[in-house]
Amino acid sequence: MKQIFFTPGPAELYFTVKSHLKKALNEQVPSISHRSAQFQSIFQEAEENLRNLLDLPDNYHVFFTGSATEIWERIIQNLVAKRSYHYVNGAFSERFYRIAQELGRSPIVQTAPAGECALVDSSKISADTELIAFTQNETSTGVAHPLKDIYQVRQSHPNAIVAVDAVSTLPYMPLDYTQIDTAYFSVQKGFGLPAGLGVWLVNDRCLAKAEQLVKQQSIGSYHSLPSLLAKAQKHQTPETPNVLGIYLLAKVTGDMLTKGIDVIRNETKFKAGMMYQMLSEHAKFTPFVEKEEHRSKTVIVAETQNHSSKIIEELGQSQLLIGDGYGTFKGKHIRIANFPTHSKEQMILLIDKMSTIL
Amino acid sequence: MKQIFFTPGPAELYFTVKSHLKKALNEQVPSISHRSAQFQSIFQEAEENLRNLLDLPDNYHVFFTGSATEIWERIIQNLVAKRSYHYVNGAFSERFYRIAQELGRSPIVQTAPAGECALVDSSKISADTELIAFTQNETSTGVAHPLKDIYQVRQSHPNAIVAVDAVSTLPYMPLDYTQIDTAYFSVQKGFGLPAGLGVWLVNDRCLAKAEQLVKQQSIGSYHSLPSLLAKAQKHQTPETPNVLGIYLLAKVTGDMLTKGIDVIRNETKFKAGMMYQMLSEHAKFTPFVEKEEHRSKTVIVAETQNHSSKIIEELGQSQLLIGDGYGTFKGKHIRIANFPTHSKEQMILLIDKMSTIL
Repeated sequence: MKQIFFTPGPAELYFTVKSHLKKALNEQVPSISHRSAQFQSIFQEAEENLRNLLDLPDNYHVFFTGSATEIWERIIQNLVAKRSYHYVNGAFSERFYRIAQELGRSPIVQTAPAGECALVDSSKISADTELIAFTQNETSTGVAHPLKDIYQVRQSHPNAIVAVDAVSTLPYMPLDYTQIDTAYFSVQKGFGLPAGLGVWLVNDRCLAKAEQLVKQQSIGSYHSLPSLLAKAQKHQTPETPNVLGIYLLAKVTGDMLTKGIDVIRNETKFKAGMMYQMLSEHAKFTPFVEKEEHRSKTVIVAETQNHSSKIIEELGQSQLLIGDGYGTFKGKHIRIANFPTHSKEQMILLIDKMSTIL
Repeated sequence: MKQIFFTPGPAELYFTVKSHLKKALNEQVPSISHRSAQFQSIFQEAEENLRNLLDLPDNYHVFFTGSATEIWERIIQNLVAKRSYHYVNGAFSERFYRIAQELGRSPIVQTAPAGECALVDSSKISADTELIAFTQNETSTGVAHPLKDIYQVRQSHPNAIVAVDAVSTLPYMPLDYTQIDTAYFSVQKGFGLPAGLGVWLVNDRCLAKAEQLVKQQSIGSYHSLPSLLAKAQKHQTPETPNVLGIYLLAKVTGDMLTKGIDVIRNETKFKAGMMYQMLSEHAKFTPFVEKEEHRSKTVIVAETQNHSSKIIEELGQSQLLIGDGYGTFKGKHIRIANFPTHSKEQMILLIDKMSTIL
C-alpha cells in the first residue's frame, strides 16, 4: 500500500506527475539539448502557465535555479549592497538572514516569538534599507504573514525592494505581485514535484537594482539577474538546468489551470478549516499559532503535549506520513502539509485517524 | 522508433535509468524527506559507488550541486582570493575564466589555438597563483589535455590548487586524484542521467584553503565548502537537493561497478578508435584535433567542409542524433558523444551511416 505524504516538503507528488514522467521518458525529454527549440518550448510552457496560474504582471520575469535556498543567496548578491531587513518567524526566515551575513552584508533582523508573526513596526526599518524580506509562510512554525501587512510595509518604504518567500504557500496564496517586487518557491511543496528546482519571480525594479549594483561590486556570475534575463528572453537558462523538472512543472501547472486556481484555493481553505477544527477540539492537540489570522492554510502546525513520536508512528502504521516539529520543536509539534495534491478524502482520512489517537 | 542521442550532453540516458526511475516512483523516493535515514542511505550509496568507480582517495569528499556551472563559481568563491590561472582550449574553459572575472578576481588565461591543447609552459604561472584550472576534456572542441601535463604542472607548482573540469570525460578518464586537488562533472554526460545535478570531488587541501579564506572574505553561504562538508558528514546536503537525481546516480554507478570500469574504459577506447578511423578515411571528414594524443575519446569532433547541417539532418532521418559544432563552429563541425551508455552496436550503426553519407 502506498504511503500518503502529508510532510511539508518534499511532499506527496501531484497526482498527475507519474503519468507525465512516463510520457517524458517516451518522448526522451531528459536527452534533449537545453539549447534546442524543444526545450525552449518547454520553458515557455512552464513560464506561461505560471503567469496565468499566479496572475503575474507583465513586468515580472520567471527564472529557474537549483533550489529556493539558492534564491536566498542570489537575492542578496543581486539586490543588496549593504542593508537588508528580515522579518523572522522561524528557522527558514532566520536562515535567509544568516545568508545575508555570510555574504558580508549588514542585515537587520526583527524576530517574533515562536508561533507569532513579527509585528510590522515599520518605523524600525532604517532609511538605508535596500531590501525587506518576508517569509509569508514559515514552514518551520506554520506562521503566515497577513498579506496586508506586507503591502503596507512596501507602501511606507517605497525605495526598498520587498522580497516574499512563498516556498510553501504557492500556488495557494493569492499574492498581489504589484505590491511586492520578488517572490520565490521550490517545486517540491505546493506544486507536488520532485525536488531540485527553484522558481524565482522578479520584477523590473529588481533588474534595475542589479544593473546598478554591478557597477560597484560583483553580483555573481551565471545566475546574476542580467545573466538569467539574457537567457530567459530566449526561453533558456545559463547552465544546463533540471530539464525534466521544468517539463514536469509545465505539465502540472497546466493541470492546475485546468482544475482552476479558485477551486484549488477553496479546497485548500476547506481542508485547512477541517484540520484546524479537529486540532482545536482534540484534548491533546493545540494549534501552535494562537492567532487565527496568522495560521498557515498550507503548513498546519500543532502542539502535541510531547506526544509527536507516538502520533507519527501510529499514523505511519496507516501509511499516513506527517512531519515532526522543526528543530527545537522536534517531539513537541507535528507539521501537516495541506497542498493542492491532497484531496479532501485524504485529508478527512487523516483527520479521522488523528481524532481517535491518544 | 526511439532516437539514439550521440549529442554531447544532455545525452542518451544510461540504459538502466528507465527501470530505476520506475522503481523510484514505486518506492515514492521523490516524496521522502532529505533529512530522513532513507535519504542518507541514498546519499551514502551514491558516494560509495563513486569512490569505488573512480578510485577516490580517502582524503576526498563528494559534494552535490545544481550543475557543473555552479561548481565553477563555488571553486572561485572558496579557493581563490585573487589569482587563478586558466588553460583555455575552447568555450567551456573560457567560461570558467570569465566567471573568475565576474566574481572580482584577477585570473590569468593562456589560450590555445582552436583544436589545440594549451602548451603547458608552467613558467608563465606566477608565484601568487592560488589555483590552476584545466579543462581535461573540452566539450566544445574535443580537445583533451594529456594527464601527464596536468600532473607535471602540479609538481612544479606545489602551492597552487589544481582543479580539473572532467565534465564530459568521467567515468572514462582514469584520473589520479592524488596528483590533483579537485575535479567535477555534471551527470547528464558520461553518467547518462537527467540534467540538474553537479558532482564536486574535493580533497582536504581545498577544505583547508576555504577555512583560511573565510577569515578574510565571504566564501558564499549554503554551498561553501565548510557548509557542504558539515552536511555531507551526515550524508546530507545543505539545501533540499535533487533527491531523485542522487538516487539515479547511486543506481547507475552501481550498474557501472557491476559492468566493471575496465570494461567501460576498453569499450570507450574501442568505439572511439573505430569512429576516428572512419573520420580519417572519409573524404569529407577530418578529425578537428590534429594531434592524436590530444583527441578526446568521449567527445569526438570533426570538420565537415561546411556540410554539418546536411549530415545532421540525414542522420536524424535514421533516428541518429549528433551535435552541431559549438559557437563559431556551427555548420563547420559535428560533435559525437561516445559515452558508456553507447553500445558498440550503436556506434557501428552510426559509423556505417556516416561512412556512406555525402
